[in-house]
Formats: sequence, C-alpha cells, structure tokens
Amino acid sequence: MTDTSWRQTSSMLKTRRPAPRVLQIAICNPPFNLLNGDVLDQLAATLRSLTAHDTGAVILGSDLPDIYISHYDVGEIADLGDLIPHPALSPPAALLRGALHLESLLSLIGLRWLVRKSPLGGMSNLNSYHECTALLRSVPQVTIAMINGRAFGGGCELALACDLRIMVDTPAEGIAGAGQAIRGSGIGQPEITLGLIPGGGGTQMLTRNLGPAKAIEICLEKPLLRAAEALQLGLVTRLVPARDLLQTTLDMAIKLSKRSPAAVAAIKDCVHIGASSSLFAGMQREKAHFAVCAMQPEAQVAMHKYLDGIDGILGSQGGLEAFEDLDEGIFSDLTPGSAAAASSAAATAATAKPKSL
Amino acid sequence: MTDTSWRQTSSMLKTRRPAPRVLQIAICNPPFNLLNGDVLDQLAATLRSLTAHDTGAVILGSDLPDIYISHYDVGEIADLGDLIPHPALSPPAALLRGALHLESLLSLIGLRWLVRKSPLGGMSNLNSYHECTALLRSVPQVTIAMINGRAFGGGCELALACDLRIMVDTPAEGIAGAGQAIRGSGIGQPEITLGLIPGGGGTQMLTRNLGPAKAIEICLEKPLLRAAEALQLGLVTRLVPARDLLQTTLDMAIKLSKRSPAAVAAIKDCVHIGASSSLFAGMQREKAHFAVCAMQPEAQVAMHKYLDGIDGILGSQGGLEAFEDLDEGIFSDLTPGSAAAASSAAATAATAKPKSL
Amino acid sequence: MTDTSWRQTSSMLKTRRPAPRVLQIAICNPPFNLLNGDVLDQLAATLRSLTAHDTGAVILGSDLPDIYISHYDVGEIADLGDLIPHPALSPPAALLRGALHLESLLSLIGLRWLVRKSPLGGMSNLNSYHECTALLRSVPQVTIAMINGRAFGGGCELALACDLRIMVDTPAEGIAGAGQAIRGSGIGQPEITLGLIPGGGGTQMLTRNLGPAKAIEICLEKPLLRAAEALQLGLVTRLVPARDLLQTTLDMAIKLSKRSPAAVAAIKDCVHIGASSSLFAGMQREKAHFAVCAMQPEAQVAMHKYLDGIDGILGSQGGLEAFEDLDEGIFSDLTPGSAAAASSAAATAATAKPKSL
Repeated sequence: MTDTSWRQTSSMLKTRRPAPRVLQIAICNPPFNLLNGDVLDQLAATLRSLTAHDTGAVILGSDLPDIYISHYDVGEIADLGDLIPHPALSPPAALLRGALHLESLLSLIGLRWLVRKSPLGGMSNLNSYHECTALLRSVPQVTIAMINGRAFGGGCELALACDLRIMVDTPAEGIAGAGQAIRGSGIGQPEITLGLIPGGGGTQMLTRNLGPAKAIEICLEKPLLRAAEALQLGLVTRLVPARDLLQTTLDMAIKLSKRSPAAVAAIKDCVHIGASSSLFAGMQREKAHFAVCAMQPEAQVAMHKYLDGIDGILGSQGGLEAFEDLDEGIFSDLTPGSAAAASSAAATAATAKPKSL
Repeated sequence: MTDTSWRQTSSMLKTRRPAPRVLQIAICNPPFNLLNGDVLDQLAATLRSLTAHDTGAVILGSDLPDIYISHYDVGEIADLGDLIPHPALSPPAALLRGALHLESLLSLIGLRWLVRKSPLGGMSNLNSYHECTALLRSVPQVTIAMINGRAFGGGCELALACDLRIMVDTPAEGIAGAGQAIRGSGIGQPEITLGLIPGGGGTQMLTRNLGPAKAIEICLEKPLLRAAEALQLGLVTRLVPARDLLQTTLDMAIKLSKRSPAAVAAIKDCVHIGASSSLFAGMQREKAHFAVCAMQPEAQVAMHKYLDGIDGILGSQGGLEAFEDLDEGIFSDLTPGSAAAASSAAATAATAKPKSL
Repeated sequence: MTDTSWRQTSSMLKTRRPAPRVLQIAICNPPFNLLNGDVLDQLAATLRSLTAHDTGAVILGSDLPDIYISHYDVGEIADLGDLIPHPALSPPAALLRGALHLESLLSLIGLRWLVRKSPLGGMSNLNSYHECTALLRSVPQVTIAMINGRAFGGGCELALACDLRIMVDTPAEGIAGAGQAIRGSGIGQPEITLGLIPGGGGTQMLTRNLGPAKAIEICLEKPLLRAAEALQLGLVTRLVPARDLLQTTLDMAIKLSKRSPAAVAAIKDCVHIGASSSLFAGMQREKAHFAVCAMQPEAQVAMHKYLDGIDGILGSQGGLEAFEDLDEGIFSDLTPGSAAAASSAAATAATAKPKSL
C-alpha cells in the first residue's frame, strides 16, 4: 500500500502514501495557502476515511515550497460582519454561543450545506475548524505537522492540533537565493493586529501548553515567533534544515506508524480530555484506558515477548541500549491484525499463563 | 489626555497619564510598600473607574525607588487569629469557605464597611485581594506590572495577576552605591517560612503557569527567586536595567494601548477562564469571543484594510517584515470610536461586500 | 527519634529515621526493583501510619545501588488479559471504568483481599497504584523521591507523585567501573513500546507539568529521557553526583521537615486539586486554606516573631540575606506542638494584640 505519486484527492488536498500505513497530505491553495472552510471540510473528510488498519501516521504538509499556511482567509472572517444589521450593534458572546450550538445541531442532521448559504455561514466555518482540529486530536493515527515555512493564525492552530510538529529552520528573514528566493519562516497568532483573537483553539492550546502568562504575551504582545523561539518554548517538536524536512518527518512517521492504534488514541484522549478535567477525573480516565490497552491482543503479544527476554534487558550491566531497542521496534509492530500479532494472540489464548515474573 | 505630573488619587495610590490612553499607577505605602486591604480597595476602585475609551493600558508600579511590594502586611494576616477563641481550636477549611462566601454576599449588598469592623474583617481583606486580582485579569485594558525591586508574597501575586511583567535586573545582593545603595531585587512566595501559604492566588497562578512540580518546589522549598530565575521560568516577561525600566514599560504600554479593547478582554477571558475549564468548554468560549470580535467595527475596518494590501504582504519574497509592520501599527489603531474607525465603519456598512478573497 | 539503622518494615520495604521527623523508605524488590501491588500496598500502609507530629518529611528511595525502579511488573499487567474470554473481545473503556469503581467500593468495605483472588485482581492493583500516589500527593509530609538510577514506567510515575525529585547524574550509558559497573540512569514512560499507556497517572502528571504537546511527544515518541533532559524539562528538581545523592536529599528533608504540616498539606491540596479545577474554584480553595493556616498556633507565633523584627529585615540596605535567614529557619521550626510553639501560643492568647503594624 505504498504509492509515492501524488493524487489530487479533493480540490484543495493532495495525498500520497510514501510508506505502508503512512498517509501524507499536502494542502494546496495557492498562491498563499490560506486556510478556509473548504480546506477544512476536505481535511476532515480525509481523516474520517482512514482506519486504524490502513493508516498509523498522517503527515500534514503543504503543497507550496516555502509557505505552510499563511493564515486563515480573512475575507471569510470579515463576512461574519454581514450578520449584524448595523456596525454599532454587536451581539453578545452568549447569543453567538447559542448560534454556534444551533449550527452544530443542524450540521449533525446533515443541514450544513443549507446553513453555508445563509448569513450564518460564518458559524459553519468556525464549527468546521473546531471539528477538524478535534478530529486531529482524537484519531488513532499519529498526526505530524510538517511545517515548511510560515504558519500564522489558523496555520499555527492547525499545527498545534497535530500530535507533533517538525519545522524548517529557515530564518524569519528568508534566504535570498541566486535562483529562487526562499520566504522566511515563522509561527504565531497575529490576530490581535487586526482586532481579532485566535479562533481555532489558539488561546486554548497556547495556555494549556505554556500557561496563561506566556499565552497572553504571545496573543497580545508578540504575535510573530521565530522558529527557534517556538522550539525553545516547546511549541514545535524539532527544527531541521529544509533539505532534511521530508526525510526526518517520514522517518518519524514510519517509526510511529507501528505504535498500537489503541494506545495512540488512548494517550491522545488522556492528554487532551483527561488532563483538561479535574485530577481525579483525569486519573479515572487514564486507568480505564490503560486496562483496555493491556487487553488488546497486540499488547498481550508484546508483553509476553518482553517477559521472555526481560532478564537480558533489565540485567544488562551497561546503559540503556536494551531499552532503546524497545523504542526502535523489537516489540513495536503493533499493527492491529498483523500476522505476528494474530498468530501469537491465538497461541497466547491457547496456552495457560506462564508469565508471572 | 496626557498629563505627566503625578496626582495623589487616593491615600495610597498616585496616578498619571504619561501618554494618551495609558494610565500609570504607583503604589505608595512607605517605608516598605506593604500591601493591605486599603491599597487593594483603592486599586480596585481605580480599575473600575476606567473605560475602554479612555484607557488601553495600565502600568502598575511602585512609588519607592527600589522596592516594588515587600509583601502583604503580616499584621493584617495575624489578625485572622483573633477569630478563634483558643489557639487549640482552628476552624476547618469548609467552615472558612462558608464565611468567605458570606462576606462576599454581604459585600455585594454594600455591607463590607460593616464586616470590616467585625472580627470577620480579615475575610474582607482576603476577598478584596481576590476581587482586585480578578479585575486585573478581566479589564479590557492591558495591565503591565513594572517591578522595580523585590516583590514577595502578595507583591508577587499582584504582579502575576497582571498581563505582562517587566522587571528590573538588579541582582539579589543589591548594589552598594557611593551615594545611594540600591536594595536587591527578587520575587517569590516565602509564606511557608511563617507557616502560611500564598493567599492571593499564588498557588493557582504558579501551578497554571509552571505545572504542579515547579509550583510545589517554589512554594515549599525555594521561596525566593532571583530575577534571572523568574525570567528563565517565564514568570516575568522581560528583564531590563533600572535606568531603562520606565521607558521600556512605557513603550510597550503605548504600543499595546492601541490594541482593540474587545480583543484584549476576549483573550484574557479565553486564557484565564476558558483554559481553566474542560477543553471542549474552553473551545466553545473562544469561538464565541472570536465571532464577537470579528463583528466589531474596528476589526471590520482593519480586516478590509488588510485585504486591500494582502497581495503585497503575503507575496513579498523576503522575510516577515511585512508582518512586523502589522504588529507595529499599520492596522493597529483599534481604539474604539476612533475617527478612522468610525468613518471607515460607516463606509463599510454602506458599500456591498468587495472583500471575498 | 533518630535511628540510622535499617528496619525491614514489611516484605518489600526497609525504613530508617536518619534525622528527627525524617523517615527514609527504601523499596526492596531485587533484582530489578519492579513495582507491584504488594509494594504499593506496603507503601500506602507506611504512609498511613505517619502523623504530622512524628514525621515532617519522607524520602522515597531504593534499596538497590544503581536502580530506582525499573518499571511496573509486566507480568501483573499481562494478567489483565485473563479477564477477557477471547482475544478478539475487548471490553470498552466505559465498562472497565465501572469495574474500577466497583473495586474501589469493595475495597472501601474491606473486601480487596477477596477481589485480589478473583479475575478482577488486576483492577485492585490499578486502584492500589492510584490510592498510593494520591496519598503521596496529600499527606502533610514533604515527600522526596531520591532517584539513584533508572525510573521507567511505574517508577517514573511514583517519582512524579512525590513533591520533589533529586536524581543521580549518572549518564544513560552507565559507568564501566574497574570493580563494580554502574548501570545507566534514565526516566520516562516507555509503555507505548509494548502497546500500553502510562497507567499510574503518567499522562496526567506529564500533561499538567509540561502541557499536551510535550506530554504527547514523551508518551508517543520519546519514551526514554536522560537525567539531564528531565532536569531541563523540570521533571526532576535537582541532579547530583551519586556520592552526594543521600546527603543532598537528607539536607533538604531536614530543612523541609520543619515546615508547618498544615501549610505543607494546604499547598499540596491547592496545587493538585485546586489548580485542576476552574480558576474560580481553585482561588476559593486557596483562600480558605490560607485562613486556616494563618489561624494555626505555630503560624501565629512565627508571624508575631517576624513582626517584632520586621524593620531590621525589610529595612536592611543590602540584598536578600535577611530573607534567606527566613528560609533557613529563624522562624521555621513549625513543628506542631513544639515547646516553643506551645508556650508562645499560650503567651499570644493571653496578651492583647500588639501586632498591628
């Protein structure tokens, strides 16, 4: 199931499969790769079409050479103003919250196409954005943003909704080339400069990652972050030269595509949903997920394989090389229904329990 | 509305207006600038008197040369002991929580002056503290703590309730001068050394900014932080030499005073209230705030101005200079009701929508 | 009450009292110090037996020279698979959450011994783990993990449940000695390599300390952290050479054992429970705890002693040395019922209030 040639999956997305169980998506909305309702709907549809069997990791990149996503389409945002009959009248947040809920309900019963044509269309775009990022945070695939250039506003938020972020180390000033100049890279939430705020989860992801002090500083005072600043803050996972961006991301995707989909989904749920509730509720959530994962055939096979070799691993006198083997894959092909998993699971079920340490 | 001379606004506060829409407050309780119930009440009254029209940024400083706020008045805290008839009897937290709620209710119907004279007066001070910091976190003005020296206990908590913190880089050892010695700077929560805990939100702001591990370390084991440590932890936004403190803070205040008050208040609410609830609830909150901000006349004007120039900004081959102009102000005079805003809003309302990208 | 010789307190725990009010626990499950249900039950029983009078600080270490806790006993985890009749059937998380609740209830009425013998025994182990870490987070003693080597999986989670973590700086590669080789150190959550997730609170403590981005990176992609990385992330409080580990930990335990137990418990509750709820609820919680602490006789004595010397401390022209004395102990013997506290409290109660500043 590897196919390295690109397919135009929908009007604004290209996809390919550079390795088994790895899907690479390229957002394609030239010339500036603005995000909009259509891109989000197509992205959500693509994510929904995946199964844990066929895909273990998703790379979310750009089709442009030096721009990830410039930002969300400001024209679509400005259209929200059409909802109000006079500029002096602005509905209160509570009313808009109601309208957003209503749009969600109408969308649930399949009427979003109708709302899109009404003055409430802007609400549909907002809800689409949040449905798409919620999907990125909940699918059993590891999602990796491959950030090849600037990612502002909605682009920053889309990257923050992924599990990991590999970013190009191009300086903010860009690179003036003899042949082809490369645009500067950067990430951040410049909405405040137009009187807006982040609307795709930026305030929430920044605060939950960096705390309120840094989140307010970034949203109010420091709208543009250089790649190196983002790395230092922990907003991007790794910084690499442009020429290594694809290979580094692909290597990581291949390694992580072998993780157990049940465990990947459980970790994402514990982190995003569990840890955003009370400590007690979060702990309860983790415990139940843990038990489910431990009961999966793939995990049972891996644990018994580990128990067979445990004395060699834990007893070795040296360093942590034995553990590093774990990470690199000796037990890690947890692809559901893989031949190894299926046969060993059957064997395990047949034999009694020889595993107590 | 600029008036660079100081006014004694109330017994313990001086104020001046060093630039349009910027209010500078100096806390004035010599010799050690202890915080107490009166300072907090006067500060709350001053904050409540501001409007989004007249003030966009508030600088919260000290009237003393080398002390920000030494700490909260320990005498007032010790008075809480008067509530208990015998030292062996100490009411449980649940009972005190009830008393604090009761005081809040009495205060709401205007009876705080009465409570202040009763043995429950200490409860009034505690509630005053929390009302004041809640105001700092919710007013539509950007609030900047200008920390010119030590800020311990209640002083640290007051600074943490502001949106941004500019701190002097004086070393903890102070500077032994030929003429005038300068006292050492530092920040932190030394309450534990007297058997107390932070009472003005310190445990909450530290945990939400740094996580439980660092918060416990600071509250239990490391009560005094040097300015450089605070910067490294992200508790202060910037460190500057004493001679640059006022100008740096003022420059930042002037720049940020032009941000849209609606957007400033929305960001503060999303960060403090939204991100302290579940991820789903926080996202809903942000979405509704975003829609409200996008409907403001000032934002509509700024967005259409941006759309007019978008090709130049996004298409430039170089670095992010075009974006930096955004931050520095080409669209950023979002003062509500400013002449530009009013006229353009009217124009926008009159014309049809030429903005779809 | 100092007794530097070790006692075998229970089958898998040794304890000693290297200083007054300091208890040192060594987990003793050779050869690899695996954590299991018995260790956790014995640890919980030991913690429950302590009082604020006899113990102010607990050091949680290992009996092995170069291993803290290798990880949780994988055999016990694999046994969870016995619950399912066929590997293709795996109960949903909601059902397991119910089973975990049921086990908690049965345990409350003293029936855990019975559950342990049933196929639900794995549920008991999970609940034991969480009861033990909840104890570590709530006891009025300061808890310090003394990490002398690798601490993976359950070992990492147990350390994260302590208030502070002092870790050995042995490199991950270990030290090849002429006589005795030393195994490499490291910390982290490698559960994903076996298709599992952290089950003892790892996802919760990592996210609350580091935010979702780093937590997902660690749980999914970077299962093994070097000691230096853990220090840089703030997951361990301090890194020391192996030969200094015990003395550094002991010095810290002795200093912190003099903190007020009421204040220690209050800070832990505000940080873990308060800051995992809404900002408003967390603030209410802190306020009430603050008032309770301020009413304790020990705190009243300390505050009045401080007020007597306040002019010297706050008025000194130099640095923060006076404050550092505070930290080092001039007011800090807050041992409940200490002779000084008792007599001064009586004196305070007898005299009128001479303390208003």
